[in-house]
Amino acid sequence: MARWTFALDLDAAGPGDAAPVFVRIARALADDIRRGRLRAGDELPGSRTLATSLGVHRNTVLAAYRELLAEGWIESAPARGMFVSSRLPDVVPRRFSARAPRPGAVASRAGYDLPALAERDLPQAEELPMTLGGGVPDVRLVPAGELSRAIRRVLRRKAETVLSYGPPEGPRELRRALAAMLATTRGVAATEADVLVTRGSQMGIDLAARSLLAPGDVVAVEALGYRPAWAALRAAGATLVPVSVDQNGVDVEALERLTTTTRVRAVYVTPHHQFPTTVTLAPERRLRLLEVAAERRLVVLEDDYDHEFHYEGRPVLPLASADVHGVVVYVGTLSKVLAPGMRIGFVVAPPPVLERFASARRFVDRQGDQLLEHAVADLLDEGEIGRHIRRARRLYASRRATLSDLLTRELGDVLSFRLPSGGTAIWARVAAGVNVDAWASRAAELGLLLQVARRFAFDGKSRPFVRLGFAQHEPREAREAVRRLVQALPPRAP
Amino acid sequence: MARWTFALDLDAAGPGDAAPVFVRIARALADDIRRGRLRAGDELPGSRTLATSLGVHRNTVLAAYRELLAEGWIESAPARGMFVSSRLPDVVPRRFSARAPRPGAVASRAGYDLPALAERDLPQAEELPMTLGGGVPDVRLVPAGELSRAIRRVLRRKAETVLSYGPPEGPRELRRALAAMLATTRGVAATEADVLVTRGSQMGIDLAARSLLAPGDVVAVEALGYRPAWAALRAAGATLVPVSVDQNGVDVEALERLTTTTRVRAVYVTPHHQFPTTVTLAPERRLRLLEVAAERRLVVLEDDYDHEFHYEGRPVLPLASADVHGVVVYVGTLSKVLAPGMRIGFVVAPPPVLERFASARRFVDRQGDQLLEHAVADLLDEGEIGRHIRRARRLYASRRATLSDLLTRELGDVLSFRLPSGGTAIWARVAAGVNVDAWASRAAELGLLLQVARRFAFDGKSRPFVRLGFAQHEPREAREAVRRLVQALPPRAP
Repeated sequence: MARWTFALDLDAAGPGDAAPVFVRIARALADDIRRGRLRAGDELPGSRTLATSLGVHRNTVLAAYRELLAEGWIESAPARGMFVSSRLPDVVPRRFSARAPRPGAVASRAGYDLPALAERDLPQAEELPMTLGGGVPDVRLVPAGELSRAIRRVLRRKAETVLSYGPPEGPRELRRALAAMLATTRGVAATEADVLVTRGSQMGIDLAARSLLAPGDVVAVEALGYRPAWAALRAAGATLVPVSVDQNGVDVEALERLTTTTRVRAVYVTPHHQFPTTVTLAPERRLRLLEVAAERRLVVLEDDYDHEFHYEGRPVLPLASADVHGVVVYVGTLSKVLAPGMRIGFVVAPPPVLERFASARRFVDRQGDQLLEHAVADLLDEGEIGRHIRRARRLYASRRATLSDLLTRELGDVLSFRLPSGGTAIWARVAAGVNVDAWASRAAELGLLLQVARRFAFDGKSRPFVRLGFAQHEPREAREAVRRLVQALPPRAP
Repeated sequence: MARWTFALDLDAAGPGDAAPVFVRIARALADDIRRGRLRAGDELPGSRTLATSLGVHRNTVLAAYRELLAEGWIESAPARGMFVSSRLPDVVPRRFSARAPRPGAVASRAGYDLPALAERDLPQAEELPMTLGGGVPDVRLVPAGELSRAIRRVLRRKAETVLSYGPPEGPRELRRALAAMLATTRGVAATEADVLVTRGSQMGIDLAARSLLAPGDVVAVEALGYRPAWAALRAAGATLVPVSVDQNGVDVEALERLTTTTRVRAVYVTPHHQFPTTVTLAPERRLRLLEVAAERRLVVLEDDYDHEFHYEGRPVLPLASADVHGVVVYVGTLSKVLAPGMRIGFVVAPPPVLERFASARRFVDRQGDQLLEHAVADLLDEGEIGRHIRRARRLYASRRATLSDLLTRELGDVLSFRLPSGGTAIWARVAAGVNVDAWASRAAELGLLLQVARRFAFDGKSRPFVRLGFAQHEPREAREAVRRLVQALPPRAP
């Protein structure tokens, strides 16, 4: 004991550490052993001594010692005390040769050349305390208690199923529940055989890119659009060509012209609420898009990321509901409905296409999180998710009004916009003379994320537009966000 | 009411449906409305009438009606009764043109050409009631109650965090816990900055393939090996070249010769317990492999899929523990330790490499299941997973003995093998004169999956070896499996 200077760092794991005190003591001692501060055969202090010096009850120290005994870190010598184990089972594994260097830290640089990659032009996630970015639901609305209970039920009733390997296309229960939802609310009369479960719409897009594209294929995308989708398409070797977007959505005539000069393999679109402009694709363009696709045999990758949020009248049906030619690959998600952290999405496509997706899925991550997937299937079946959607829709409609009123009142001379009929954000034009990028920089200094058009632009150029999310803000929060927005407004050019 | 013939299919969802009766009644009625059997304005039967005809309590019917009212399917006319809603909010969304076809089923064929794909030579999952395949842990041992409680705690304490967007490299808490585990048990002094959380080792391999390989790159693989890894490498455009495997693991001299004639970009290996042969890579080969990699600047993709299961003495350290040159990309998983259905794996590599992985991750599926990841971090911190590993290791050691004894007693003249020092399976040579593929076919007829060497062979050719898993079988189950194995033995050639 004399050889050992006592200094246990119980807070090594940081202030957020919620482990019981005895576990933290055990861990700190194990750390000391691992780092060589305590050596094999070293005597540990008596439980009373250690308890006193740590200011804890002796039973706590005894519990820590029991844990360390069970783990093999220490051994007890009757009537003499506790000692660091002379044979540490896992700690000192065999080095594979006397010539091998000592176990060490991970190298800081790669010992090989990193190849050039397709452009992965993703905006870095900005971590600002407050965001006026769009497309994010309010996760505080998620029925976390219901979710917790559903997970417990699944673990009680079918632990063996959800803990084992399962089908790469997702559990039958969830595919069935999603098919019922699609038939009821979106006019897509899918059966479970037409649905493949993914981890959010992002994985649906990535699987489509990997399964349907060959390197060099041309894919048309919206000129203002969703970068993570572009990154997945590019990673599959696709060459992207932008098609302009106006107040009626993507310009289908321009797409059609493109197909006469270029062999276009696919088009990636967000027809319901165009991302980021929130406009709905006009009916005549929808029909023409399907016709062009059928004539030219091109894949229509339809991303219907927030179908549920429509505030006036009935929602417009997705292209997939009228896809008699089998050209649409329909991608959706519950991430926008429930929470981004619940990565549950789906793809609807003809079965031979889904088979390809399933075969790719097997080498991407094998299968989804069956525990969560079964729980969500239950919540869908029980109507819990439907109730949540109706609650959220009512609330978001009123938050849309709140933000719209605030913007009109506080920034009426700077921003002009039409109230979107759905979605989670307002797309607003910024008055001439206001440097929109400077505005965003100044907002960031105030801790507010303001999403400007440039981050969605295929050409990376600035445009006088911003996207302002309303779904995630309570009125109080929206007022504070707009207050900072006003404060950040740069001086206007004359 | 007279217009309506009453026929509710309460069991439409199948016999496994565990939803409450009122939910099933509501769903059946909603289905009838959706399918047009009930039309807008149709009167519903009185609650007493419906309750009697269904044999349920009237309150149950009233609860179903309340649910349908809340969902907007039906409306109540005071003193007159319940009617199918005249404005169904979600059911009859706008078709986008009179010319648009009626919503219909998903097309059965694609309206575009499917491109040729890299070989995805994956054996189809065989669903046989009993398996002697290896590499699968016994999921019945998973502490499901602890897991359930950990998930509930996470949802109670940090629902907002886990339900929101998070870092693509995984939660800090889990990376820290995994780094501690690697330092303690595997001699890899990683910090959280060196660890990226994946969904099983499969995703680690896929991310490596997508981030470190360019189309046409040559990757060396073990001539008997793990097909799903090969599929991921091929999907990234790699050309695979097999290197033979013997009783000392992969033939590093052969690899070295290959690098003198061919520009090899990477090598994919399973040094700890070679898959499928279970042998450990010999010390001198380990060292030489690292040297060759450093000289030739090639990536060593080390898949340490079941490190925890070693039954004699100390485990051998992974290559990553001696990787001073930064050539190793180390891939591991908790799927083998806990359960295949819990897709939690990790990659350790130099930070600039992990940055590439994280950037790819953002367009693959954005992030992992944070709820499960935080729960597993807690279970690691509390020592729960360590305890589970020790329990499983003891049990698997005894199951290894059980299967080995059974095979020696019942099939001693057919199978010869060395007891593996670790892992979850025995690799056995089949005596001359026994047609191993016929044996597997006959076993399948008896409901037993027998994994023959051919399914692991790069050249797809038959070899007189089988892989027999012992981890997932209780003694009773092992006896039954071996009984069927004996029964399936084909007549021996003279």
